Amino acid sequence: MLKKKKDGEISEPSVKKIQFADQKQEFNKRPTKISRRSLSRSISQSSTDSYSSAASYTDSSDDETSPRDKQQKNSKGNADFCIKNIKQADFGRREIEIAEQEMPALMALRKRAQGEKPLAGAKIVGCTHITAQTAVLMETLSALGAQCRWAACNIYSTQNEVAAALAEGGFSVFAWKGESEDDFWWCIDRCVNVEGWQPNMILDDGGDLTHWIYKKYPNMFKKIKGIVEESVTGVHRLYQLSKAGKLCVPAMNVNDSVTKQKFDNLYCCRESILDGLKRTTDVMFGGKQVVVCGYGEVGKGCCAALKAMGSIVYVTEIDPICALQACMDGFRLVKLNEVIRQVDIVITCTGNKNVVVREYMDRMKNGCIVCNMGHSNTEIDVASLRTPELTWERVRSQVDHVIWPDGKRIVLLAEGRLLNLSCSTVPTFVLSITATTQALALIELYNAPEGRYKQDVYLLPKKMACMNTGARRVQ
Amino acid sequence: MLKKKKDGEISEPSVKKIQFADQKQEFNKRPTKISRRSLSRSISQSSTDSYSSAASYTDSSDDETSPRDKQQKNSKGNADFCIKNIKQADFGRREIEIAEQEMPALMALRKRAQGEKPLAGAKIVGCTHITAQTAVLMETLSALGAQCRWAACNIYSTQNEVAAALAEGGFSVFAWKGESEDDFWWCIDRCVNVEGWQPNMILDDGGDLTHWIYKKYPNMFKKIKGIVEESVTGVHRLYQLSKAGKLCVPAMNVNDSVTKQKFDNLYCCRESILDGLKRTTDVMFGGKQVVVCGYGEVGKGCCAALKAMGSIVYVTEIDPICALQACMDGFRLVKLNEVIRQVDIVITCTGNKNVVVREYMDRMKNGCIVCNMGHSNTEIDVASLRTPELTWERVRSQVDHVIWPDGKRIVLLAEGRLLNLSCSTVPTFVLSITATTQALALIELYNAPEGRYKQDVYLLPKKMACMNTGARRVQ
Amino acid sequence: MLKKKKDGEISEPSVKKIQFADQKQEFNKRPTKISRRSLSRSISQSSTDSYSSAASYTDSSDDETSPRDKQQKNSKGNADFCIKNIKQADFGRREIEIAEQEMPALMALRKRAQGEKPLAGAKIVGCTHITAQTAVLMETLSALGAQCRWAACNIYSTQNEVAAALAEGGFSVFAWKGESEDDFWWCIDRCVNVEGWQPNMILDDGGDLTHWIYKKYPNMFKKIKGIVEESVTGVHRLYQLSKAGKLCVPAMNVNDSVTKQKFDNLYCCRESILDGLKRTTDVMFGGKQVVVCGYGEVGKGCCAALKAMGSIVYVTEIDPICALQACMDGFRLVKLNEVIRQVDIVITCTGNKNVVVREYMDRMKNGCIVCNMGHSNTEIDVASLRTPELTWERVRSQVDHVIWPDGKRIVLLAEGRLLNLSCSTVPTFVLSITATTQALALIELYNAPEGRYKQDVYLLPKKMACMNTGARRVQ
Amino acid sequence: MLKKKKDGEISEPSVKKIQFADQKQEFNKRPTKISRRSLSRSISQSSTDSYSSAASYTDSSDDETSPRDKQQKNSKGNADFCIKNIKQADFGRREIEIAEQEMPALMALRKRAQGEKPLAGAKIVGCTHITAQTAVLMETLSALGAQCRWAACNIYSTQNEVAAALAEGGFSVFAWKGESEDDFWWCIDRCVNVEGWQPNMILDDGGDLTHWIYKKYPNMFKKIKGIVEESVTGVHRLYQLSKAGKLCVPAMNVNDSVTKQKFDNLYCCRESILDGLKRTTDVMFGGKQVVVCGYGEVGKGCCAALKAMGSIVYVTEIDPICALQACMDGFRLVKLNEVIRQVDIVITCTGNKNVVVREYMDRMKNGCIVCNMGHSNTEIDVASLRTPELTWERVRSQVDHVIWPDGKRIVLLAEGRLLNLSCSTVPTFVLSITATTQALALIELYNAPEGRYKQDVYLLPKKMACMNTGARRVQ
Repeated sequence: MLKKKKDGEISEPSVKKIQFADQKQEFNKRPTKISRRSLSRSISQSSTDSYSSAASYTDSSDDETSPRDKQQKNSKGNADFCIKNIKQADFGRREIEIAEQEMPALMALRKRAQGEKPLAGAKIVGCTHITAQTAVLMETLSALGAQCRWAACNIYSTQNEVAAALAEGGFSVFAWKGESEDDFWWCIDRCVNVEGWQPNMILDDGGDLTHWIYKKYPNMFKKIKGIVEESVTGVHRLYQLSKAGKLCVPAMNVNDSVTKQKFDNLYCCRESILDGLKRTTDVMFGGKQVVVCGYGEVGKGCCAALKAMGSIVYVTEIDPICALQACMDGFRLVKLNEVIRQVDIVITCTGNKNVVVREYMDRMKNGCIVCNMGHSNTEIDVASLRTPELTWERVRSQVDHVIWPDGKRIVLLAEGRLLNLSCSTVPTFVLSITATTQALALIELYNAPEGRYKQDVYLLPKKMACMNTGARRVQ
Repeated sequence: MLKKKKDGEISEPSVKKIQFADQKQEFNKRPTKISRRSLSRSISQSSTDSYSSAASYTDSSDDETSPRDKQQKNSKGNADFCIKNIKQADFGRREIEIAEQEMPALMALRKRAQGEKPLAGAKIVGCTHITAQTAVLMETLSALGAQCRWAACNIYSTQNEVAAALAEGGFSVFAWKGESEDDFWWCIDRCVNVEGWQPNMILDDGGDLTHWIYKKYPNMFKKIKGIVEESVTGVHRLYQLSKAGKLCVPAMNVNDSVTKQKFDNLYCCRESILDGLKRTTDVMFGGKQVVVCGYGEVGKGCCAALKAMGSIVYVTEIDPICALQACMDGFRLVKLNEVIRQVDIVITCTGNKNVVVREYMDRMKNGCIVCNMGHSNTEIDVASLRTPELTWERVRSQVDHVIWPDGKRIVLLAEGRLLNLSCSTVPTFVLSITATTQALALIELYNAPEGRYKQDVYLLPKKMACMNTGARRVQ
Repeated sequence: MLKKKKDGEISEPSVKKIQFADQKQEFNKRPTKISRRSLSRSISQSSTDSYSSAASYTDSSDDETSPRDKQQKNSKGNADFCIKNIKQADFGRREIEIAEQEMPALMALRKRAQGEKPLAGAKIVGCTHITAQTAVLMETLSALGAQCRWAACNIYSTQNEVAAALAEGGFSVFAWKGESEDDFWWCIDRCVNVEGWQPNMILDDGGDLTHWIYKKYPNMFKKIKGIVEESVTGVHRLYQLSKAGKLCVPAMNVNDSVTKQKFDNLYCCRESILDGLKRTTDVMFGGKQVVVCGYGEVGKGCCAALKAMGSIVYVTEIDPICALQACMDGFRLVKLNEVIRQVDIVITCTGNKNVVVREYMDRMKNGCIVCNMGHSNTEIDVASLRTPELTWERVRSQVDHVIWPDGKRIVLLAEGRLLNLSCSTVPTFVLSITATTQALALIELYNAPEGRYKQDVYLLPKKMACMNTGARRVQ
Repeated sequence: MLKKKKDGEISEPSVKKIQFADQKQEFNKRPTKISRRSLSRSISQSSTDSYSSAASYTDSSDDETSPRDKQQKNSKGNADFCIKNIKQADFGRREIEIAEQEMPALMALRKRAQGEKPLAGAKIVGCTHITAQTAVLMETLSALGAQCRWAACNIYSTQNEVAAALAEGGFSVFAWKGESEDDFWWCIDRCVNVEGWQPNMILDDGGDLTHWIYKKYPNMFKKIKGIVEESVTGVHRLYQLSKAGKLCVPAMNVNDSVTKQKFDNLYCCRESILDGLKRTTDVMFGGKQVVVCGYGEVGKGCCAALKAMGSIVYVTEIDPICALQACMDGFRLVKLNEVIRQVDIVITCTGNKNVVVREYMDRMKNGCIVCNMGHSNTEIDVASLRTPELTWERVRSQVDHVIWPDGKRIVLLAEGRLLNLSCSTVPTFVLSITATTQALALIELYNAPEGRYKQDVYLLPKKMACMNTGARRVQ
């Protein structure tokens, strides 16, 4: 019953949206989640097992009993959690320790917390991907004085071993990989519906937690000091609520901070384009002819990386300013049809639809690799390849050969979805930027004097956004 | 009874050397195989399963019967081969087809062969790694007119599915992954000891096949027109034979051709350093401080790649010419102890012993990554880390955390063996250079007029070595 | 009575400001002109003769008679101009032809004008630097249908031979190198105060022409359709007029267009830092240690260029976002005092004051080169070097050795003024962007339907700004 | 009566060769001097005055009296020299001091000499370009204990002010800019034909000094311990002498040392291509399309520099290994005729003849810049442009517009001679490598135990060649 949604995630079954039809006015235009950032390594792991660098012995677990039906207890006797298998805690702890190495800003925050506890008294309910990086965030929030209860924002993205380590460490975590739709909402409910504990802060990624509280426990907002929202989708929902006059607490949009944007696009893609291509195709970059469609931040990152590896890179671009930049950076501006017959690799990063259409693919040379680094799965017209005369062959996970009647084949990666999410890992350091921004936003909202923030959606003050990188500099 | 040998290979059990004690004079100084080139992707796969990009369902085969004990037949009824499982032929065929895309020079040779058959009448016995790339070579030799019989040069490196595809295609292949010592020699013997067929060319990688014929069937050399040898080890053995006046046919050393050297080192390492680090640690390169020990071709490749990805790179170098080059290329020359406390990554590529000793590792900062890209597993003094006060934790395949009493940990990759062989894949295009060189050498020796080559070891004439790259240019 | 002002320009004598004391409210806060763009190659020529790449035989002219006192006539008998020496016209023509090669967008505009004359009827009075690039602009405006009268915006920046070529070509030009204050205003007045001709468009660089018309001929504005202003200073004055409700025609600010900013800073400085250093010091970049203060667009350009030439580059930066970018681009972030003793070259581009103070210069090593690429001449505290114990030696034009009592010397370039203006040339292609933007702004204002522009200051519509680069792309 | 010879030098009048017709067997095949290295900055100055960065007030000297006819004395009363004008000594001293900053290895040698005097007793006669860099060498030799007498190896390359500073400093220098043929030999003779002083070492650049002594004072060789020769020409002559059995002392070939080759080509050209193009044409590199003919060390340097500045670079190459390198370095391999219509700049560095012939130039686009960085002035077929239908216009020094009947013009630099010698300066640091090598060779030959060197031509031992760079490293 699960369908592939955006960017390699498994979508929540569509029934969910119907469930709360009366909330339609705010939520019915729910946009596709396109945030590059909200997906962590474990996502890509889940959908691309064979590329995973972490041994995911999670998967080999044969235990088919639902976690909800099991008696669970950690080594100290605590039972206020629900996860797959507490025995995986040690392995999860190692993953968390690896992640800590690459999250210097959070660790610095944590160190500072030895003196002050800016989140003392905070009761945070969270709903995010549950990964090693999230664990570092949660343990940092805890070190800063907060109590946390947590659910997963995606039914498929939980690293079970990390959830185990968190549960073993005393966190009330309700999440496992492969939840059902019903499990999903049950887990969220278990986080907020607790006797003797009421959240005063929300950390959300996608808006489902916020939605649930609005729906089920609207009174809870009386005690809530603010919402920190990570994703484009969730932010969109908040703006709709705000516009409709229904947002009853201040909210912080951490999706649009400067550092996040730079990291998500330029710096992160500069590395992940190489990683994604290598892991899927083992292609040698030196001497290859590559066309990159689009010279925004993502395109700039892709072009810089491939040029440095010795590829000959062409750029297509319609925006004149970006075109000028490509030109001044030494890339030959072309129209796609000028080079389509000669290139070895085609990469889309325009953010538009149907950039690479069937007509172009008909003219590509044998063995041409086609992939997408842009914002959606629509840049390559994959649908046009699903015709009877073409044969698809899945040669590896995430790698299809599409074969023409004359024997020509193109190599399509991730079925046109985002290469960097499907076939490479997002460096922890990049996720660290997000996580730190979230922590800073929580601190800011929790400690803000009355009146600083109204019932509206805010961006994190630039000064605070910068502490983030500041921590890195000092290091 | 298998021991790890150099570079992730499994060594032949030591008994072998004793077996032919009388041949001692030529073979007892058998040097460590250090050829970067002779190891193909499947090798790294074998030792690093979790990084493998090819789905290796080979491994999940539960069939424990020895291939030698099975009745084997391909779909055309041919039974002159011995492999793991003929049913894997289809999957192997796909791997071969992927490889063909990146081996333009061989494919060009093959195309040319439609007119002429320069190897018509050639009976080639081969002993190399049996991988998709080798398969492309074998099928090319066949297209050029040769008959081939083949064994594996390493007991662990055979891609079973590729061997299956070859057997299905009519080749007499004797190889599987996980041969015993006895199997190893049995397979070689099956290649040469055939009724009604006698080889007239040898293609060897490591010298074992050559050795076996010398030992068991010395008369065979009367009909043999020449030996093509790939590895440093094998070439060394040939030079010893030649020196001792015992080399009775011309031999071609393809290990030392110019293109091969450039590819193995500069261009290949420029890509594999990134690939190896990313697959093992997911580290973000941007902003990292890295020290590269040694600025030869390998070091140049590593430095160029990391600089391009935004790392801050320091170089240690004792050769003044190389030091000058590092300097002029914009790298700060340092002594290792000047920067050891501050760097995030240490990479050795000097070719020397004990470049990174315990004393340095004691001073590294928490989380420092240590790896080796040089010519042996001796650059990092790993032995010095095997002391009681240090704790080793295997966090992923090929990744160990070594933990000091105060909690500091360093991240040791591949236990100090070659990162690019253990943790990344060698691009097919690089292997293509080797394979083409081998094919050209076979053609040259087979067709050379009498007297052109004496009973000596030759390098491939530069002109022929260049056809290789020429094919690429025209493409 | 002339004083050096900012950036190598000669300031107008200060009396000027007093002259129109009643206009004080708009003009008294006249900011320093800091526009990098408004200075053309001829400026740097004028102040750095020995680096000039154009043979400036202008200078050798011994004729001391003021142009105002000479009878002047071109070969067709036209006498409506006043320049240094009409005989230099041929040489000027060659300079103009060279410039045309690098101004593709203007030439494209001109070609298009064969069909339409968008400036038919336009009477443009201009006051800009009179250089070969300006000449290309003027001849383009003329080809588009306009009549032009022109004066210089700087008493020192006129290329006499270009003025001669323009006069010979029939343009009414009033300008020469080395005008007096009185000459300056006399020339401007000759442009506007003509019988039977009244301007309907103004093209200004610095606001002096606009100012003069406001002061002397306010009624002229009744017929004027708009003002196009190039410089920061002039734009600032216009905004003040607008704020004071005294701006009586629409004005176009071409200083702040996107393309101009990118060109002025990143792309232009990437080339001029190398050019400026090479022409003054012949220094080899490879292997040099350089610290760049500031990682804005200018700093990014300098760093990229020097890194590419093999320098080891350090960056100081206080803005966290820029610091992060430097870090991710592979530059080591330092505090100036950490590296001041070891660097070979110090480059300021922060836009701040006193970035390099005496204390740092005291600690620099012998031979250290110090120069400024930032926005003013205040980044290096040059005043602090004018003390008795230090000896200044002018070793070349624009190059001073400042010698400490112990014999240590530092190499100070352009006395701390902008290196790229003083010691290198601005590529014509960069000036082409400005000139094209000016032409487009004139066309837009002249042809705009009534009511599109009010009496306010506008930016050139993005779409038009882009035609600029578009022309380049198509080319 | 002077003719332009190779590389911007003025050739010795041809009579010279006739003068010693009896020596014909060794000298008649006198090859063109093609050494990139033997030409110092002052050469380019001399022929390209307007680009010179040093104020050469030398030139403005109106004194037409021959130096040979003047009474000359320095401030200490010493008169054993013959130069242009002793009054320029102070200015020359400053040039020398500037040069010292960039010659760390020589300065280090000099410092070491405070303890030991490895050249004590050496009487060196030298014949080289007389430039600031040579002066630093001579003063170093003197500090090491040697006595020196010096003439110029080129009638046009002497920096008069440097010669003045040397004379003022007590050196017996016989040289000025603009010597006649007769002056040239007179100066050399004054160096060797001195009462009471006989040289025991020769430092030569071109072989003229050596030739003179062979011819006129053959007995002098009895006391001479060795010859150090800088140029290709001179080395060629020495090998001929050696072959003919006529070389009667050991000679050291410093032209072919490793460091020198790397510096002359890769590192030096990487900088001088930019410098040469900028000074002559002010062209902006960003976005330009450039074709570089030849991918040897010179081509590699040019390509790397232009790529880094944002040019789009194509490469033509016939050697397959170099072609492969270009390919792997990310340059598109083309045939010249594929791109000749579209490129903005054509650069030759093949070392061959007629690489750019008339046919190609006919097809270049308007404004295309054509220049040569290769080994001779024959790569561009300039002769083919000297036809009646083409008009030549000298637009600047070293810059010609060649104009086709239809108005198309190409921009030819340095009339096809070496751009880097004609239009840019050779960094002192590069010359420093040569000078240090010369000093080390003198020390080695002077101190070598009897028998180490026979009457043959030697390369500097690698170990010594490296001291050179070693000095830099330590610095």
